[in-house]
Amino acid sequence: MEIFELGDFPLLSGYTLPGAKLSYKTIGTLNAAKDNAILFPHFLGGASEALEGWIGAGLALDPTKYFFILPGQFGNGISTSPSNSLPPFNQGAFPACTFADDVIAQHKLVTEQFGITELQLILGWSTGGLQTYEWAVRYAPMVKRVAAIATAPKPSPWTRLWLLTLIEEPHTSDPAYNRGFYADQKSMHAGLRRQAHGTALTLPPHNFYRDELWKQLGFSSLEDFISRFWEAFWLPQDPNDLIVQARKARAADPSQGGDLDAALKSITAKVAVIAFTVDPMFPPDEGKVDAARIPGATFLEVPSIFGHLATFQLSQQDVQAVNAALADLLAS
Amino acid sequence: MEIFELGDFPLLSGYTLPGAKLSYKTIGTLNAAKDNAILFPHFLGGASEALEGWIGAGLALDPTKYFFILPGQFGNGISTSPSNSLPPFNQGAFPACTFADDVIAQHKLVTEQFGITELQLILGWSTGGLQTYEWAVRYAPMVKRVAAIATAPKPSPWTRLWLLTLIEEPHTSDPAYNRGFYADQKSMHAGLRRQAHGTALTLPPHNFYRDELWKQLGFSSLEDFISRFWEAFWLPQDPNDLIVQARKARAADPSQGGDLDAALKSITAKVAVIAFTVDPMFPPDEGKVDAARIPGATFLEVPSIFGHLATFQLSQQDVQAVNAALADLLAS
Repeated sequence: MEIFELGDFPLLSGYTLPGAKLSYKTIGTLNAAKDNAILFPHFLGGASEALEGWIGAGLALDPTKYFFILPGQFGNGISTSPSNSLPPFNQGAFPACTFADDVIAQHKLVTEQFGITELQLILGWSTGGLQTYEWAVRYAPMVKRVAAIATAPKPSPWTRLWLLTLIEEPHTSDPAYNRGFYADQKSMHAGLRRQAHGTALTLPPHNFYRDELWKQLGFSSLEDFISRFWEAFWLPQDPNDLIVQARKARAADPSQGGDLDAALKSITAKVAVIAFTVDPMFPPDEGKVDAARIPGATFLEVPSIFGHLATFQLSQQDVQAVNAALADLLAS
Repeated sequence: MEIFELGDFPLLSGYTLPGAKLSYKTIGTLNAAKDNAILFPHFLGGASEALEGWIGAGLALDPTKYFFILPGQFGNGISTSPSNSLPPFNQGAFPACTFADDVIAQHKLVTEQFGITELQLILGWSTGGLQTYEWAVRYAPMVKRVAAIATAPKPSPWTRLWLLTLIEEPHTSDPAYNRGFYADQKSMHAGLRRQAHGTALTLPPHNFYRDELWKQLGFSSLEDFISRFWEAFWLPQDPNDLIVQARKARAADPSQGGDLDAALKSITAKVAVIAFTVDPMFPPDEGKVDAARIPGATFLEVPSIFGHLATFQLSQQDVQAVNAALADLLAS
């Protein structure tokens, strides 16, 4: 993981992050023409490494052909975040920021660090996908293609409520939270467990538990799945950092509170909207409506039994369907 | 609300509740033959009063024709509960109990207080419905008809996880909970709000928020709906009482850990299984499977936009469909 020094970075909220940093990882080699770059921002609670399974020789995302930049975001614990900031912006005093700030920072990375003026593709899952829409609107001339996977231009009211209820409130309602100035990360374990259990309940589709799909993933029981998958995923994370990420997701809006239809109509990239059957977070029927709002966008529903969890590559069928869609998009 | 004195009541767990009480309410008049009684137990967090809207002259549940007994259950705050028990069974030390205990207590009420030997119908919504299955198996000869509405013989793994995650853990994970021995009910407000928000997120179907159905119900915003519907519903309740109710629901099993298929095959009542489109708690596809396991049972999916919330009579279409199904069942 590398760090791009943003310097004193002004946020759209009016605050300036002093000596701000953006984490990133690259895979593959930027060619001399600098026209083989793909940007792949990450989802909430994930890190760039969580995306690497989608990149490999022979796959659509082929590092022998493309140069991948996997940028971080503010609040991911490596880039400038509540957990690594000095006063006055430490812990609960981290200033409000948005995905627009992240995309502006990522744009600096792409243009200033690498001298890239055109991206072949920006893709992202879930809140990573929220960033792809921000890119496609804000820097339209730079973006040739977008794959918006298990995501939306703007999260639905239900998804915003999910972010508030299951990512923010398990911590903010805890006396130990102390308005963000908790003693240490470990003291927040109760809220992190609540978050783990709440996400375990709501992210897998209903059939996942009824049909005991955790067996296919190598877990010995439902309890084992909840401990070693969900608790293991969330317990190491910092609540303030997660809250920053969740608030950015809740506020995501590539029109910045303006006319979203007009913003989506302004997209010049070729957009592929990919949704998954039984994804409660970004249901296919909503993805289809999103695609219809974007000029020339395609829509694909992948018939998955894993819904929003498809990002974890739990099924070869899901992986193949996404890979084929990305190959088609890159060939277009 | 009346109280039936159960005396010293032995629970199946081996503990005995001293001077146990079962709350109940009656509507209508028991006829001389004592053959016009209908039993209508309540759901989690509800009280008998919450069911009264389904009963009325001209409706299927007609009090000019039938005698309704609306029994309470242990843990509902009026019947013997953690919140009203003396030591050694006060607060967090309330003994484990099950819906089998409730049904045994309700059977004493029905037979000893009223001398009823046959029930025309037992009906219940959600965890009220769990009790109808317990009745239909345990006291098969007494039960002529059952309407099991938005429920199941045994909750699914997802529904059990929901009960644990969103009814129990918001409280048990709170330091103020103190293993059930909290200072007072008001000190538990943070967990009750978490519970309100978690249930607001998961009980309405996804379309409820997307299509702003709260408008139809007279709320001015999503936030208004969450405050004045969900928080208002849960905030007055006692966490230990709710946990008793949730644990009974999680453990519900009319075969008592035995052969559920055999238990369901032993039902002699005419059973109507009624499920609601977009009910995440008891999905129609699962209700259909349940009905097929019960001799002579009918299955009806009510095409609702309110899912599990249909119990609150939010739509005239839902109300009419349920009323018609109950009328058919009572005529059979």
